Amino acid sequence: MYKITLSEKETPKKWYNIAADLPVELPPSTQTEEGHQIDNLPKLFSKYVLQQEMSTERWIDIPKEVRKVYKQIGRPSALFRATGLEKYLDTPAKIYYKREDQSPVGSHKLNTAIAQAYYAKKAGAERLTTETGAGQWGSALSLACSLLGLDCTVYMVNVSFKQKPYRKTVMHLYDGEVLPSPSNRTEFGRKILAEDPNHPGSLGIAISEAMEDAFNDDSAFYTLGSVLNHVLLHQTVIGLEAQKQFAKIDEKPDILVGCVGGGSNFGGAAFPFMKDKLSGDLDCQFLAAEPASCPTLTQGEYKYDYGDTAGLTPLMKMYTLGHEFVPPSVHAGGLRYHGMAPLVALLVNQGLVEGRTVNQTELFQAGKLFANTEGVIPAPETCHAIKVAIDEANKCKKTGEEKNIMITFSGHGLLDLQGYDDFIEGHLTQ
Amino acid sequence: MYKITLSEKETPKKWYNIAADLPVELPPSTQTEEGHQIDNLPKLFSKYVLQQEMSTERWIDIPKEVRKVYKQIGRPSALFRATGLEKYLDTPAKIYYKREDQSPVGSHKLNTAIAQAYYAKKAGAERLTTETGAGQWGSALSLACSLLGLDCTVYMVNVSFKQKPYRKTVMHLYDGEVLPSPSNRTEFGRKILAEDPNHPGSLGIAISEAMEDAFNDDSAFYTLGSVLNHVLLHQTVIGLEAQKQFAKIDEKPDILVGCVGGGSNFGGAAFPFMKDKLSGDLDCQFLAAEPASCPTLTQGEYKYDYGDTAGLTPLMKMYTLGHEFVPPSVHAGGLRYHGMAPLVALLVNQGLVEGRTVNQTELFQAGKLFANTEGVIPAPETCHAIKVAIDEANKCKKTGEEKNIMITFSGHGLLDLQGYDDFIEGHLTQ
Repeated sequence: MYKITLSEKETPKKWYNIAADLPVELPPSTQTEEGHQIDNLPKLFSKYVLQQEMSTERWIDIPKEVRKVYKQIGRPSALFRATGLEKYLDTPAKIYYKREDQSPVGSHKLNTAIAQAYYAKKAGAERLTTETGAGQWGSALSLACSLLGLDCTVYMVNVSFKQKPYRKTVMHLYDGEVLPSPSNRTEFGRKILAEDPNHPGSLGIAISEAMEDAFNDDSAFYTLGSVLNHVLLHQTVIGLEAQKQFAKIDEKPDILVGCVGGGSNFGGAAFPFMKDKLSGDLDCQFLAAEPASCPTLTQGEYKYDYGDTAGLTPLMKMYTLGHEFVPPSVHAGGLRYHGMAPLVALLVNQGLVEGRTVNQTELFQAGKLFANTEGVIPAPETCHAIKVAIDEANKCKKTGEEKNIMITFSGHGLLDLQGYDDFIEGHLTQ
Repeated sequence: MYKITLSEKETPKKWYNIAADLPVELPPSTQTEEGHQIDNLPKLFSKYVLQQEMSTERWIDIPKEVRKVYKQIGRPSALFRATGLEKYLDTPAKIYYKREDQSPVGSHKLNTAIAQAYYAKKAGAERLTTETGAGQWGSALSLACSLLGLDCTVYMVNVSFKQKPYRKTVMHLYDGEVLPSPSNRTEFGRKILAEDPNHPGSLGIAISEAMEDAFNDDSAFYTLGSVLNHVLLHQTVIGLEAQKQFAKIDEKPDILVGCVGGGSNFGGAAFPFMKDKLSGDLDCQFLAAEPASCPTLTQGEYKYDYGDTAGLTPLMKMYTLGHEFVPPSVHAGGLRYHGMAPLVALLVNQGLVEGRTVNQTELFQAGKLFANTEGVIPAPETCHAIKVAIDEANKCKKTGEEKNIMITFSGHGLLDLQGYDDFIEGHLTQ
């Protein structure tokens, strides 16, 4: 069997909240003495997602309307067996990949975008604001807003706005309004532009603009595409589906591997399986793959830090390279983040998840091999996970172990072909 | 229900050959008195596909190895209901779309690429040659060769080679060799380059080069991505799956609409349903959507003509704008063809299929609406079919008829975003 599918009826009815089962309590978000970050949250987020952010309920209902849109965009997603890759590697391991790339926006981001748009609308919002770097998250939120009847304003890092015109086209197709950040729309943006009209922008600046915009408009909320507890909660639909899919073939993963930037794809896929590990029902190794150039888990410190550059978010306990760390401009833009979702960070700190680093050349090599043997062209982010899976499959070849390796396949690389081209042409430096 | 799926076991075991059921005999391909086009075919194609080209057997076995690769790349493909679009149009019609865009190469082309690579290998070939315009077909053949262990040489029209670098990257990822055509690799190419070193190339020239290359190498065969009978035969896997999917929901299409360039996506989807129409078991309207700027079916003549510009192919009876007709450079590059598959042409001539034209602005409008309401961004080619489906759904709104409209959704538009951008920015001329 190559493809393990679920019927629409098997779409999960509840998200899984790992906060209920953590081995130690999650250190709460906090603010500095002079800060108002937490006080400001109700102006930025609907009460529904703030409830979810704090919740320790194990199971949280997926609203019927959200499930309906999940189905409309093609959920449940398929779990594929990578037989071509296995054959090439000549490994006794079985490699599975859970395909979020088949979402219309090409990544897992839509899972939480739909939920956040739904709750915002329920709370009376007419518009959502957000920031985007490479454009994956901005595309997902734009589509979610289009499907649910909301306006959407995306602050896109100026340099990406210029370098990635097609991501902008995708957002325009979904009727998202896309502004290069810094922009004239906000006070913060105007201030920066006054100093440097050609400022390249940064994710930190874009976050600040999107937050300011929502803060000053009673009919708008702000949204975030990763890191926060409620975002990871929404993404557990991935792991919950995968559990059902493994059950269908009477198998379990021995290794689960995903890439980590903010941690939402990894967390969403891993947490339902982690529940079984914590209860002793599953013996599984959890591997989080990150760029060697942005080694949050492997070289960062576990401490309180801001989620953004400007210090507008509450302080969160996480692995961090420092909120002023500027990651090099790697092709896997989605993994260029100084911090890590507090939930994923805690599991790493408890020794339940292990970080692994992958460099640029290795990841594109892995991506090309995957394309060659399976056909699907993975996003550079996803390639990190594939590289680690290949390493593990090669170990199995040596030991003869028939392990099941599950890759959470976060997205396709069709809008990231420049990176592959640089790799093929030998232009990558590391 | 939003998505009607089939299990792998339900992958068709035989292709359907409509030559067995045509209301009149298919006029055979022929050659001019001085020509050797037909005599040359055995040097260009494996005996297996030549047998299929001439066959009047109704059902032709899909080899087990081909079915295996079909499953590996995700077949059967899903049939989706476009509820978001229906709601927007406020139509009583039900709109379904059969998703070839979810193939790893993003289009239906892989269905025949896999089969052609399999038969070539079976006949002892080590390499395949072909031409490509926009790059869809070249990508599909490159992947098929990679999966089946063959080398692949793609002659890509020079102007596309320069303008569409990412299609080239995709072919490189699949280990295809991509040459800008005219090239120095062939005598014909060298001759043209001697006259004009910066010649922009054309599909006709690229066909000539790919044919010459295969002709002079005993270990290579030439392949074509559309038009020929055996290509359309392989594509019937689309319609055969769709039939099973409609049967699952106890429905039948009242209207089947597809875009036509060479005719392989349309023919592949339509022929199994046409069989039922010819036997009186189905009352269905078949609509073939073509660009207003390349109106083969609606303004071409039904006569014998060459399939290529240079006159290297046999003469085929088809609708044609003349083999020297140069279609304007429209964004739907896959539909820029002066002729039409003889099988589709015959059905049009018999009044069983109706041609419809769509202009560029209309098609991108339809594509944007589809993206807005369903999420999926259609290829410009596919947008032709969507536009016609929308027209029919609007008619149903007036009459109140609850028709089932099936779109054969040939591919996604993620590598064609420039066209959408031109549309959004108001740069399209028609």
